[in-house]
Amino acid sequence: MNQDYIKPDVWSIIEEGFDKERVKSSESLFSMGNGAMGQRANFEEKYTGHTFQGSYIAGVYYPDKTRVGWWKNGYPEYFAKVLNAPNWIGIDVRINGEYLDLNTCKAVSGYRRELNMKEGWYQRSFEAVLPNNIKITVKATRFLSLAFNEIGAIAYEVTPLEIDAEVIFEPYLDSGITNEDSNWDDKFWNTTSITAEGGQAFIEAHTMKTNFATCTFMQSQLIYNGEVTIQTPVESKTEFLVKHSYVQHVKKGETVALHKFGGYTVDRNHKPLELIKAAKTALKKVLDLGFDALLDTQKLAWANIWEMSDITIVGDVKAQQGIRFNIFQLNQTYLGTDSRLNIGPKGFTGEKYGGSTYWDTEAYCIPFYMATKEPKVARNLLEYRYNHLEKAIENAQKLGFSKGAALYPMVTMNGEECHNEWEITFEEIHRNGAIAFAIYNYYRYTGDYTYIPEMGLEVLIGIARFWHQRATFSTQKDKYVILGVTGPNEYENNVNNNWYTNYLAKWCITYTLEQLQKVKEGYSDDYHRIIGVTKLNDTELEKWAVVAGNMYFPFSKEHGIYLQQDGFLDKELIPVANLPKSQRPINQKWSWDRILRSPYIKQADTLQGFYLFEDQFSIEALEKHFDFYEPFTVHESSLSPCVHSIQASKLNRMQQAYMFYLRTSRLDLDDYNKEVEEGLHITSMAGTWMSIVEGFGGMRVVKDKLSFTPRIPEQWEAYSFKINFRNRILKVAVSQKETKFQLEGAEETSIRVNGKRVVIAPNKETVVSN
Amino acid sequence: MNQDYIKPDVWSIIEEGFDKERVKSSESLFSMGNGAMGQRANFEEKYTGHTFQGSYIAGVYYPDKTRVGWWKNGYPEYFAKVLNAPNWIGIDVRINGEYLDLNTCKAVSGYRRELNMKEGWYQRSFEAVLPNNIKITVKATRFLSLAFNEIGAIAYEVTPLEIDAEVIFEPYLDSGITNEDSNWDDKFWNTTSITAEGGQAFIEAHTMKTNFATCTFMQSQLIYNGEVTIQTPVESKTEFLVKHSYVQHVKKGETVALHKFGGYTVDRNHKPLELIKAAKTALKKVLDLGFDALLDTQKLAWANIWEMSDITIVGDVKAQQGIRFNIFQLNQTYLGTDSRLNIGPKGFTGEKYGGSTYWDTEAYCIPFYMATKEPKVARNLLEYRYNHLEKAIENAQKLGFSKGAALYPMVTMNGEECHNEWEITFEEIHRNGAIAFAIYNYYRYTGDYTYIPEMGLEVLIGIARFWHQRATFSTQKDKYVILGVTGPNEYENNVNNNWYTNYLAKWCITYTLEQLQKVKEGYSDDYHRIIGVTKLNDTELEKWAVVAGNMYFPFSKEHGIYLQQDGFLDKELIPVANLPKSQRPINQKWSWDRILRSPYIKQADTLQGFYLFEDQFSIEALEKHFDFYEPFTVHESSLSPCVHSIQASKLNRMQQAYMFYLRTSRLDLDDYNKEVEEGLHITSMAGTWMSIVEGFGGMRVVKDKLSFTPRIPEQWEAYSFKINFRNRILKVAVSQKETKFQLEGAEETSIRVNGKRVVIAPNKETVVSN
Repeated sequence: MNQDYIKPDVWSIIEEGFDKERVKSSESLFSMGNGAMGQRANFEEKYTGHTFQGSYIAGVYYPDKTRVGWWKNGYPEYFAKVLNAPNWIGIDVRINGEYLDLNTCKAVSGYRRELNMKEGWYQRSFEAVLPNNIKITVKATRFLSLAFNEIGAIAYEVTPLEIDAEVIFEPYLDSGITNEDSNWDDKFWNTTSITAEGGQAFIEAHTMKTNFATCTFMQSQLIYNGEVTIQTPVESKTEFLVKHSYVQHVKKGETVALHKFGGYTVDRNHKPLELIKAAKTALKKVLDLGFDALLDTQKLAWANIWEMSDITIVGDVKAQQGIRFNIFQLNQTYLGTDSRLNIGPKGFTGEKYGGSTYWDTEAYCIPFYMATKEPKVARNLLEYRYNHLEKAIENAQKLGFSKGAALYPMVTMNGEECHNEWEITFEEIHRNGAIAFAIYNYYRYTGDYTYIPEMGLEVLIGIARFWHQRATFSTQKDKYVILGVTGPNEYENNVNNNWYTNYLAKWCITYTLEQLQKVKEGYSDDYHRIIGVTKLNDTELEKWAVVAGNMYFPFSKEHGIYLQQDGFLDKELIPVANLPKSQRPINQKWSWDRILRSPYIKQADTLQGFYLFEDQFSIEALEKHFDFYEPFTVHESSLSPCVHSIQASKLNRMQQAYMFYLRTSRLDLDDYNKEVEEGLHITSMAGTWMSIVEGFGGMRVVKDKLSFTPRIPEQWEAYSFKINFRNRILKVAVSQKETKFQLEGAEETSIRVNGKRVVIAPNKETVVSN
Repeated sequence: MNQDYIKPDVWSIIEEGFDKERVKSSESLFSMGNGAMGQRANFEEKYTGHTFQGSYIAGVYYPDKTRVGWWKNGYPEYFAKVLNAPNWIGIDVRINGEYLDLNTCKAVSGYRRELNMKEGWYQRSFEAVLPNNIKITVKATRFLSLAFNEIGAIAYEVTPLEIDAEVIFEPYLDSGITNEDSNWDDKFWNTTSITAEGGQAFIEAHTMKTNFATCTFMQSQLIYNGEVTIQTPVESKTEFLVKHSYVQHVKKGETVALHKFGGYTVDRNHKPLELIKAAKTALKKVLDLGFDALLDTQKLAWANIWEMSDITIVGDVKAQQGIRFNIFQLNQTYLGTDSRLNIGPKGFTGEKYGGSTYWDTEAYCIPFYMATKEPKVARNLLEYRYNHLEKAIENAQKLGFSKGAALYPMVTMNGEECHNEWEITFEEIHRNGAIAFAIYNYYRYTGDYTYIPEMGLEVLIGIARFWHQRATFSTQKDKYVILGVTGPNEYENNVNNNWYTNYLAKWCITYTLEQLQKVKEGYSDDYHRIIGVTKLNDTELEKWAVVAGNMYFPFSKEHGIYLQQDGFLDKELIPVANLPKSQRPINQKWSWDRILRSPYIKQADTLQGFYLFEDQFSIEALEKHFDFYEPFTVHESSLSPCVHSIQASKLNRMQQAYMFYLRTSRLDLDDYNKEVEEGLHITSMAGTWMSIVEGFGGMRVVKDKLSFTPRIPEQWEAYSFKINFRNRILKVAVSQKETKFQLEGAEETSIRVNGKRVVIAPNKETVVSN
């Protein structure tokens, strides 16, 4: 953890000073993305120091053959890798023949990176003395266009300071790239054509196995003294690389700039044979605009995003920077316009984890997207799972389930399971419940019931069938039990009757039965279609009801709490606070067996159930469970602190809530887990948003109405957020003494604040004392 | 399973008819070994069909870097591979320029393999028509010398049948070999010199990483018309291969033979720089003898082995063949003369499993070696673990244990853990108890207490310390519990309070405390040395006693049985008999999670405890537990049927006992699990021996006396076995009506038969009615 690395600033992420040891960390922190593609903040120019090169295209992956120590029956055959894509950002720079390479410069000063989150651009500037003693300043500005999401732009400026110099820019495209995490050192890309003509260049390459066709392209402009110089570059090609060369004699103190435009066209959006044509069309548009005008569209697009999703915090710059970083990264990763895409756990910032979709999407991300975007965005995320239903049924079949039971994968790209640890893939089945919960949550928040008869009910039926088959009857307990699972707390494997899983299973069946009835009554055509497809009959439904009605829940009378799983109380119940610091984090200090038999909880497990289903438990029950489980929680998952922050807020323990908030919001900026160089923790960032809106703000939807219980950490003067609730925009601003509500539009609405009904008139502040 | 593949024969394993599909299976079944080296029954001559090449040198292994899907803290860094060693058996054969290759011959007839177990040789003979239409007969006889264990010999005879022919023999050595199961395709061998001079050839090669130096060598004689022809062969070399060439014009109907002598000298037995010298010495000895005289020494050596270890069965050829095959293979694998070696689970017959030492040695093999060899052999096996004590302490430290606690590895070559599945390596800790039990068993059987003060007590202390630390206190149960283990039944992982493990833990501590007292009283010097080394004090001992005295054992009042683990009765208790055949073996048909949550037992678990500690349970208790657990047992481990056979015999259920016996004794010969081509199941073969001696014969040691409860399956007329009990040789012959005892030596002894004392006079038959 390093709290001084990133300078506090309310709108920007700023690094000052060049430190070779931090290059890889900063490559993660300054990553760019526009939902369709993204990249780590690798240098444009040559760099021979340690770097982790990464450019990524949404939806383009590779099924890397699974590699395990001992094969278990049912393992997925492959692990879907987030693929490092061809590099379009590269610009070699030579000054009087000498390559600019920050690793070999005699001196580097004034080095500064800024990621301007407000406007959506990234800039790096420095002064350097090259090995040939030439001193230059460099300023490189880059962004990935939101307006034209196949395009990125770079303005790379060089100024020789002490003498006139010949500056050569060599922008290139390179498809000779690899993944650091390849299992078998397979070749992932096949380059099929390299074209360079009239100042444009194109590399056509397709992925092996998945055969995704892509075209990586570029075109540049040379600007000297503010004028675009017409120069047809010298072109050169090698097996995987195409390069242009622009030469300019630059007077001392004057600036030459290369404006490079590049990016990808892919066959998800175009016919495979028309990728070059599409690239040319995209290039023409942005070349006509030029760098500055394109940047203006970028600022506008980000202004629109912030208009709806910004959270302000007054009196705590680091907290302000943290929450904006989280919101910025979520928007860089996923914009919700394409239901074939999802929210990768590392977004476009690294390779680790593989797959794009985890239960994180349903349990953590959907609330953020529902509240800050059009309802269609969350619906796209739900449709993504509907489109994968068939694969989820196949996945369940592979594991021995039948008759349309669906088990959604733990990790996926295309609906198939692609994780390869049995205790996760086979046993962490609670993810199936989160997918059902998201359907419920979507309707609760948006009021849009149509998704359920149109698509959601089929998903619910598949999931209910799974739970029905997965539970078995214990004659000993005279109840249905669910044996051999891993709960959200992955520091337990193969446990029996994980309370969260059992609860979710019962809930899924009950909820599905209710929706079946509702659809039967209100959407007769859909109902008959669904019954036809699923071949559901009353006998099966009765069996479901028996299982749901007789589910076993481990409970301790002594403690008055549900047990995380059978036998939890047999553990040595030493609170985390009593562990020597030298033993933590336990996932780095302890062997796996020791972790498993310890009581320590990686992330909210029983408390996750109390979060999702809070209306079914009293505040006293929450307090009891929080007081029991939190002391054993090590929060070694990025998904843990946010749920605890929300619950601490609910219990009005603001010090604790604030502490958890800080931990979630600056996890990557302060590199708590010393792993930021591998990439950012994208999905947990939605949890940070929840910590403020649902935690401090206490926002809930109760019977179709918004409800708030505003609280504020004593460290803050004020904070505000906006939400889109059923197409009404409400701004909530909380200070130490009061909360102001402001509604856009023409109609009044009523909400509940601290349990009391409050009518909010549009376009004027309604103030409620805290 | 194929019961007709191997011809029934009381002393030989015989295959008739050439079937390319069976080449790999037969390569396993006809494997040779002499304790120091061994090899699969690969053809000497070129063979282009499917084959699994394997030559192995005892104690020569390679630490292959662990490859797992997701790394867990504490994993061993490598998996010790049984290494395919340089090939010395190869002889290319050309007839009039055409290579003999059974895969390309126009016709093969009269093909026969015989493994003569009585005399310890293997012979292959056939008639073949080569692609050039020349018809020949071939007879190749091979053995690995017991008298000179660095040497193997081959007599390869060719007879052209219809025309005179030029026969060229090209014996060679080849170090360009690989392992089929390599994790990373590492190069395992480094060849440092290839020498050919005066008809001898040597390849010096050392293993990578472990740096074991070896010399593979050969020298041959050409025999024509029964005369050794003096011929200096033409020599040729390539990067990894050296070849001799012997040419002979052979008249129609006459026979030319090549007698090839080869093998390995290794730096375990010689100085690394003197391996060639040692090879020359070995070659001189056997060349002086010649093939036939050397074969005579072989027959004599095997006669000596059989004299002591043979079991005869009258009236059931397949059962007779089965038990001799088991005894033969055990002796091929391990002869007990070198305490640096152990009993690999596949012996010298394949690569699978890696490592040479499992708990199989202590739990299954030691009784066989104690009863059929000098006591020194079993003691060597115990010393092997004593020599690894330091590594076992290191292993425990890696997993978080302290103060000299020892956890012996699940799989090892040199004392270090080298398995790589957490649920086995970290959790299958019961193996630690088997090592303590073997110490107890050794003393019980041999009466040699000296091992305990000299070495065993230190091992026991390390083990007791482990159990003391591994148990934790459950306030809920007010008992010590052992959480997160895998029992002998590997179809359960990460369970709590596996009864067998808990029982063993308690027993280990109690037994160690007793031995401490005994050594203190009787071996004062040793006691003080050990206390000095281990820094044991009374406080620690008191703590041990508390844990042992308050161990928790899961028990079902309803069933009156100990539970395999906590929660076992929550499973769906459907007996194996009610499973559809299509679902078995479950390890091929079911996903891992389904196996884990099922009640099905891979091998004896609770019943393993009843086997080891039978004197602590009544026959009624055994019956109850047998009746409860056996119906859930799928016997998908080779170690399962033998324990069940012994217990069925004890319960006088002879039909069942016989059925289990057949399954264990002909597991490989009849290829029950369709995997014999990977190699043989060596360690479980000791279980077959136990099934007869301890099962049918009911042999036990009770208070320093032998005891028998002879029973006999109705399918047999009679059977007999011999045991060496405290240097007295007793032969036991059981028929349907009576049992005859015959004692070698001069003194009488008393034994118990069916609970009654019987005095056995030496050198005369004592007959007891059954």
